[in-house]
Amino acid sequence: MKEDKQTKTGAILFDYGRTARIGLPEAVFCEKKNPDTLRILLERFANGDPPILFTRLAESIFSQMPAHIIAAYNYDQPSRTAFAAKMERRGRGSVAVISAGAADAAVAGEAARTLEYLGIDFTLFEDCGISALWRLTDRLEAINRHQAIIVIAGMEGALASVVGGLCPRPIFAVPTSVGYGVSLGGMAALNGMLASCAPGIGVLNIDNGYGAACAAARVVNLL
Amino acid sequence: MKEDKQTKTGAILFDYGRTARIGLPEAVFCEKKNPDTLRILLERFANGDPPILFTRLAESIFSQMPAHIIAAYNYDQPSRTAFAAKMERRGRGSVAVISAGAADAAVAGEAARTLEYLGIDFTLFEDCGISALWRLTDRLEAINRHQAIIVIAGMEGALASVVGGLCPRPIFAVPTSVGYGVSLGGMAALNGMLASCAPGIGVLNIDNGYGAACAAARVVNLL
Amino acid sequence: MKEDKQTKTGAILFDYGRTARIGLPEAVFCEKKNPDTLRILLERFANGDPPILFTRLAESIFSQMPAHIIAAYNYDQPSRTAFAAKMERRGRGSVAVISAGAADAAVAGEAARTLEYLGIDFTLFEDCGISALWRLTDRLEAINRHQAIIVIAGMEGALASVVGGLCPRPIFAVPTSVGYGVSLGGMAALNGMLASCAPGIGVLNIDNGYGAACAAARVVNLL
Amino acid sequence: MKEDKQTKTGAILFDYGRTARIGLPEAVFCEKKNPDTLRILLERFANGDPPILFTRLAESIFSQMPAHIIAAYNYDQPSRTAFAAKMERRGRGSVAVISAGAADAAVAGEAARTLEYLGIDFTLFEDCGISALWRLTDRLEAINRHQAIIVIAGMEGALASVVGGLCPRPIFAVPTSVGYGVSLGGMAALNGMLASCAPGIGVLNIDNGYGAACAAARVVNLL
Amino acid sequence: MKEDKQTKTGAILFDYGRTARIGLPEAVFCEKKNPDTLRILLERFANGDPPILFTRLAESIFSQMPAHIIAAYNYDQPSRTAFAAKMERRGRGSVAVISAGAADAAVAGEAARTLEYLGIDFTLFEDCGISALWRLTDRLEAINRHQAIIVIAGMEGALASVVGGLCPRPIFAVPTSVGYGVSLGGMAALNGMLASCAPGIGVLNIDNGYGAACAAARVVNLL
Amino acid sequence: MKEDKQTKTGAILFDYGRTARIGLPEAVFCEKKNPDTLRILLERFANGDPPILFTRLAESIFSQMPAHIIAAYNYDQPSRTAFAAKMERRGRGSVAVISAGAADAAVAGEAARTLEYLGIDFTLFEDCGISALWRLTDRLEAINRHQAIIVIAGMEGALASVVGGLCPRPIFAVPTSVGYGVSLGGMAALNGMLASCAPGIGVLNIDNGYGAACAAARVVNLL
Amino acid sequence: MKEDKQTKTGAILFDYGRTARIGLPEAVFCEKKNPDTLRILLERFANGDPPILFTRLAESIFSQMPAHIIAAYNYDQPSRTAFAAKMERRGRGSVAVISAGAADAAVAGEAARTLEYLGIDFTLFEDCGISALWRLTDRLEAINRHQAIIVIAGMEGALASVVGGLCPRPIFAVPTSVGYGVSLGGMAALNGMLASCAPGIGVLNIDNGYGAACAAARVVNLL
Amino acid sequence: MKEDKQTKTGAILFDYGRTARIGLPEAVFCEKKNPDTLRILLERFANGDPPILFTRLAESIFSQMPAHIIAAYNYDQPSRTAFAAKMERRGRGSVAVISAGAADAAVAGEAARTLEYLGIDFTLFEDCGISALWRLTDRLEAINRHQAIIVIAGMEGALASVVGGLCPRPIFAVPTSVGYGVSLGGMAALNGMLASCAPGIGVLNIDNGYGAACAAARVVNLL
Repeated sequence: MKEDKQTKTGAILFDYGRTARIGLPEAVFCEKKNPDTLRILLERFANGDPPILFTRLAESIFSQMPAHIIAAYNYDQPSRTAFAAKMERRGRGSVAVISAGAADAAVAGEAARTLEYLGIDFTLFEDCGISALWRLTDRLEAINRHQAIIVIAGMEGALASVVGGLCPRPIFAVPTSVGYGVSLGGMAALNGMLASCAPGIGVLNIDNGYGAACAAARVVNLL
Repeated sequence: MKEDKQTKTGAILFDYGRTARIGLPEAVFCEKKNPDTLRILLERFANGDPPILFTRLAESIFSQMPAHIIAAYNYDQPSRTAFAAKMERRGRGSVAVISAGAADAAVAGEAARTLEYLGIDFTLFEDCGISALWRLTDRLEAINRHQAIIVIAGMEGALASVVGGLCPRPIFAVPTSVGYGVSLGGMAALNGMLASCAPGIGVLNIDNGYGAACAAARVVNLL
Repeated sequence: MKEDKQTKTGAILFDYGRTARIGLPEAVFCEKKNPDTLRILLERFANGDPPILFTRLAESIFSQMPAHIIAAYNYDQPSRTAFAAKMERRGRGSVAVISAGAADAAVAGEAARTLEYLGIDFTLFEDCGISALWRLTDRLEAINRHQAIIVIAGMEGALASVVGGLCPRPIFAVPTSVGYGVSLGGMAALNGMLASCAPGIGVLNIDNGYGAACAAARVVNLL
Repeated sequence: MKEDKQTKTGAILFDYGRTARIGLPEAVFCEKKNPDTLRILLERFANGDPPILFTRLAESIFSQMPAHIIAAYNYDQPSRTAFAAKMERRGRGSVAVISAGAADAAVAGEAARTLEYLGIDFTLFEDCGISALWRLTDRLEAINRHQAIIVIAGMEGALASVVGGLCPRPIFAVPTSVGYGVSLGGMAALNGMLASCAPGIGVLNIDNGYGAACAAARVVNLL
Repeated sequence: MKEDKQTKTGAILFDYGRTARIGLPEAVFCEKKNPDTLRILLERFANGDPPILFTRLAESIFSQMPAHIIAAYNYDQPSRTAFAAKMERRGRGSVAVISAGAADAAVAGEAARTLEYLGIDFTLFEDCGISALWRLTDRLEAINRHQAIIVIAGMEGALASVVGGLCPRPIFAVPTSVGYGVSLGGMAALNGMLASCAPGIGVLNIDNGYGAACAAARVVNLL
Repeated sequence: MKEDKQTKTGAILFDYGRTARIGLPEAVFCEKKNPDTLRILLERFANGDPPILFTRLAESIFSQMPAHIIAAYNYDQPSRTAFAAKMERRGRGSVAVISAGAADAAVAGEAARTLEYLGIDFTLFEDCGISALWRLTDRLEAINRHQAIIVIAGMEGALASVVGGLCPRPIFAVPTSVGYGVSLGGMAALNGMLASCAPGIGVLNIDNGYGAACAAARVVNLL
Repeated sequence: MKEDKQTKTGAILFDYGRTARIGLPEAVFCEKKNPDTLRILLERFANGDPPILFTRLAESIFSQMPAHIIAAYNYDQPSRTAFAAKMERRGRGSVAVISAGAADAAVAGEAARTLEYLGIDFTLFEDCGISALWRLTDRLEAINRHQAIIVIAGMEGALASVVGGLCPRPIFAVPTSVGYGVSLGGMAALNGMLASCAPGIGVLNIDNGYGAACAAARVVNLL
Repeated sequence: MKEDKQTKTGAILFDYGRTARIGLPEAVFCEKKNPDTLRILLERFANGDPPILFTRLAESIFSQMPAHIIAAYNYDQPSRTAFAAKMERRGRGSVAVISAGAADAAVAGEAARTLEYLGIDFTLFEDCGISALWRLTDRLEAINRHQAIIVIAGMEGALASVVGGLCPRPIFAVPTSVGYGVSLGGMAALNGMLASCAPGIGVLNIDNGYGAACAAARVVNLL
């Protein structure tokens, strides 16, 4: 291949002022980023100063990183998240993370890991799908002890409507891409959550557990 | 305008054998049919022999018909249905027609009127929307006394999933075009019902109360 | 028309316990409801006990109501909302309602009227569309004095992303059906808000100013 | 990788009461579930008490399970279903499973296997696609001897309409993702079945053979 | 209003050579054309030289034209077509125009009127919808006496597949916008026809009876 | 109706600095704006200082304005545009506005009127639809004498690809909502223009003649 | 794995009478068919009696067949087609197969191979994309010597409109899935062809070269 | 496999006159082209006369080419582009290529490499995403020194609106397929850019960096 001056792409301008501005630090969304770019970023933040969250970091890419990078990070495969250090505790509240089924575990994990990194307390309430209402109603009192609620569900996403009719807290709903046919890719759950008959539910993009944690953090940061 | 031999359209071949074949008579779907064609059909069946159901018959068209046609038919404006006579009672079961809210009344009415015309007993359970679960759970025992269930809901259509997790009967779900934004036209409810986490729900086209009644009739006709 | 026993639809089961359960009262969504059903409901709550909000109440329908109903209600035509009495003040925070342009006034109005009815303080920041960033940045300090933010925008809905990158508060974004072509009906704004590069924005259904106010109320009710 | 307390996800709350409630047991939908979660579930039900159905269980995952699990289960690769024991016979009817072509065999298999697991008799009528009507009409009498009908078709899904016009039984139609271009993913068949000119067909989600079997079971359970 | 030089739009360049080029003359599609532009065009071709077809000409516009224009044209309201003279007979074949139901009459009429204007023989076979197969099979022999077939159907459009499996002639299928819910606007029928399991069906745009007649004319012009 | 302090919406912050910033003044998009808001804006700019363009101003609204407003403005009904004064000539180039057919006249008019208001020379080349290629090729030399090209077409929008393969100038393509079925609303033309096999065509939103004129103005402003 | 009576699927009812009925034999669409089913079918027709066409037969599957099957068939990898013998020549016409670019070769190949198998003469005119009109216009006379035309194009599919305005023959257009973004999967080309401003083009499903050949065969069979 | 005369596809008619016609040479879009066809084309232009650009050339294909082809070309993996020689400098302007984030680097690279090949100067401004506005505003003056602007962004694509409100130059926006859920495949960014509230932005197909460079070249070629 002829060697020749080539176009260089992939430069990064890190937004260090974001926490001061909005109470949430910049995170690195790894999908579609070049492995070289990711390596430079992982290297830069391996000392945990400042603590940075990497999301959608595929294990196939992370496992190819140099050993000192792998050693420096707390990586969670199911949620594809990594951080070298956590932020200090902010706010006084805690978050209930409710999910419909075990198939939603990757998204629930992304939300939970983001809260952990942000230094916010949370409790996981999994497998609350409404085809067996008792799984939700039995735990309602425990859920309502938290100051913000994240609801995670695929298929038709009806769990958000049921929670919205039973809980007074700020609710952030995350549709997941669990399902097939009309729910393939999460659109049925997304639209179901947006069209919910229960009032005042804020909806996040499909599979966006990270975003739901940030939304809940904006609430907890107020308290 | 020059007088000239013109293309004639609108001929009808009535399917008199349908009841013998499938236990359900042909009905006349009036939308997009020419008023002249409708007048001929209403005239033909005004004596109630055989009893015929007209669906989606707009009041603006029906009210322009000759007086003897108007007099001959039992017309219901909210459901836009008309019939001059009802069929004889078939089967031994009855149907629960459950709807989410008063905005679904036109579709619930189309289902109920079709059952009435088909000679099948039914009970209406309206305003059971799941943002207040007690409205459904308080009436569950009464619902389960019927042999088939029709669930009618707009917005996110989550009522179908909740009923599907609580009732053992054959369930036919009708999404309605109640809602706005992502639920405009009923697609969010339709997809939510198809993607339901509750097993074994048969879904009908949006606003198709007539079809749900026919599906329930196929069950009751077995008993 | 033959008189004959007819199917009756439109029964209502009011959810009086909703405020106790979730801190928000039931409201009446008027679209697709029968005028007779609406008249009964307006009559029932005309004495303001309990205070009830009617949304999407078309002026063409409200203006046909009996004089004593019209007299009893505070009706706002642009936002199509009505209430006979307001709720008592809850929570200690206030809400910033930011909109992109004057074409979004109906939705901004629905949010503002709902907050007014719920007894929650708010400030309107209109015409902040990002084709002229100074309209937002000049008012940023005033906006950040509130505890929750509602962002309302049509077309591409980019205002939500810009606010999300500049403000730390819980943000609820409402896409509006302002626009044409690809933004007709609000889908471009909705998807833009869901896909926002700014973290932690809860999105409501298209034109759902009422829902955004309820979501903000869930936050203010915590404080 | 730094060892550190991590977010644990994937907890399961099994709904043992479902058969008592709705006449159908909970099943395990395996797609997107973590292999570790699946292993725990397969282990739990390997003794066949209660009998549990696993659907969408990929061969690549099942074949990696420990030998005693593989030995305990009756696994069918084309339909991706597994069960260690079958339920006892319920109801007195039987089901006709009609499919359009050999490309629909995986979905027809999921329906048939679910019926087998539920203890319900059935007959398979395959390759009945309507481009050669005689394949259906020659077997019509045999089909009508059953109490419920499942129709499975991809491409344009027109088989459901033809069956609906010829058979009086409750009909549950399953669109399949067989096809390309506009029928890729099964949407053309789904919409064709929902829009069918034949009255009273309940439609299931794309490729949902399991759901159709459950719907037919709700009918057979009545008899 | 200030008088001022304004932008003039609406100029027309008529394609007189089209018949020589492709055997089909230019036609005037009237939708969205300015009434003034239409009046100029109707005036120009009122003497029938050359004979020109106007399609989608709304009665509300045509009836406002000057009396001598109205007198000069053969206008058909249901199909919204007009011509002052017909073309001479071309080709030696004839066309079968098959439609599913009386609700498709406007589109069947547009096809038939276009054939009449083009000087091509045709027979209308209406109300052949497949929910009663005998309506088609009884007339199959008569249909197959023609050299080209136009199939017109709404809802799920399955008639095209059935005809395609029974008739050897070139078949042009026209989906109609008859239906509601998923078939609203004709997309279900369009996709059903494109995905047909019967081989070799050419599909036209929704409601395009004119185009189907032109396609059939391209065949007849060969003979 | 009870008098009560109400939520006031519709405040305007005019962006007077836009011309200095981007060479194009702010315009008023009138759709969905309240008639009262429009009256205040029309009043404000009736003296032509600065000259302001109103787009999508419905005749039914403009004709209800006070006489002195109507007198002050140059209003064009087909393009729904109004201005009280034009801007001074900018740049040294001119623009070719090419449209496919007379049905596109409203959008071609919006582009032409915007150019007129911006003080930019242009020539209209109408009725160049590619079903008769000579209409374009005969005028190609005249088109290429301009420095920027606007192409306006509905249905399949193929005119943009043909122009793109024959003309070297910057090309801005505007799909129009002319058509029916799959081209209803302009999506087929939009996607066709975006997917064009001809290189380097910038596409605007459906029916956005105003935007195309602004894009061409950005080019002419450079010269 | 426990041995146990299993559901058997994949039965085939071959439609031997199709050629007598419609002039076209049944073909085997291989996508989603089980390799075992395909092997049985390839074995059955390996002696070429009757001659059968296999479409969408992946090389990865064909190359795994027993040697005597591979030896018996004429397999073409780019078009994924196979036949052991060809049909006898039918009709007196020939077909022009026009494609837009080399990326469409797989679909053009499927059309050409099907015509070869059906015993129909054809000429391939490749790389006629309209970004360089001369590639089509230089060959127009040669194209018009054929009795039917197949046009194959991806991206925006505008080639069909240009051919439709220049050629009098029956035209069958095949959109291809060549392209990305809005043309990914072929929808832009499909809709462009359906919305074509040129009259009388029959459109096939995306990538359906086989169907176009069958449609052209229906024409040639007439001559 | 039986040897037999087979259909040959893949012929190429190169459009050498394109530069003379429109100022831009033909390029080779490699996706879906057969490796054999690509090898012939790469061989033909390996001597750099004329200089030809290959786009979407997968590394897996290029790396399989003969060594002398690999040696002859300047290949860039991230942008999947190759050329053996560059064109001579045309025009006097330069282009600013602005991108939102490092995940957009492949598309930014395609635009930059195309400009490099076309002999046009450019500057890359990467990582300007609007969640941190300072990244754009700090570089605004440098951006506005160029004569044309390319904006590249995924997710919601709001960067185009912000640039459009701050920069006077011709702007060509490229949505990228960066994102997930509603922005999967780039549709949210595409629609956001088309619906932009900033005036006069020409939009390209998703990921079409090549097209944006060509559009900018059409501007620079004028100067």
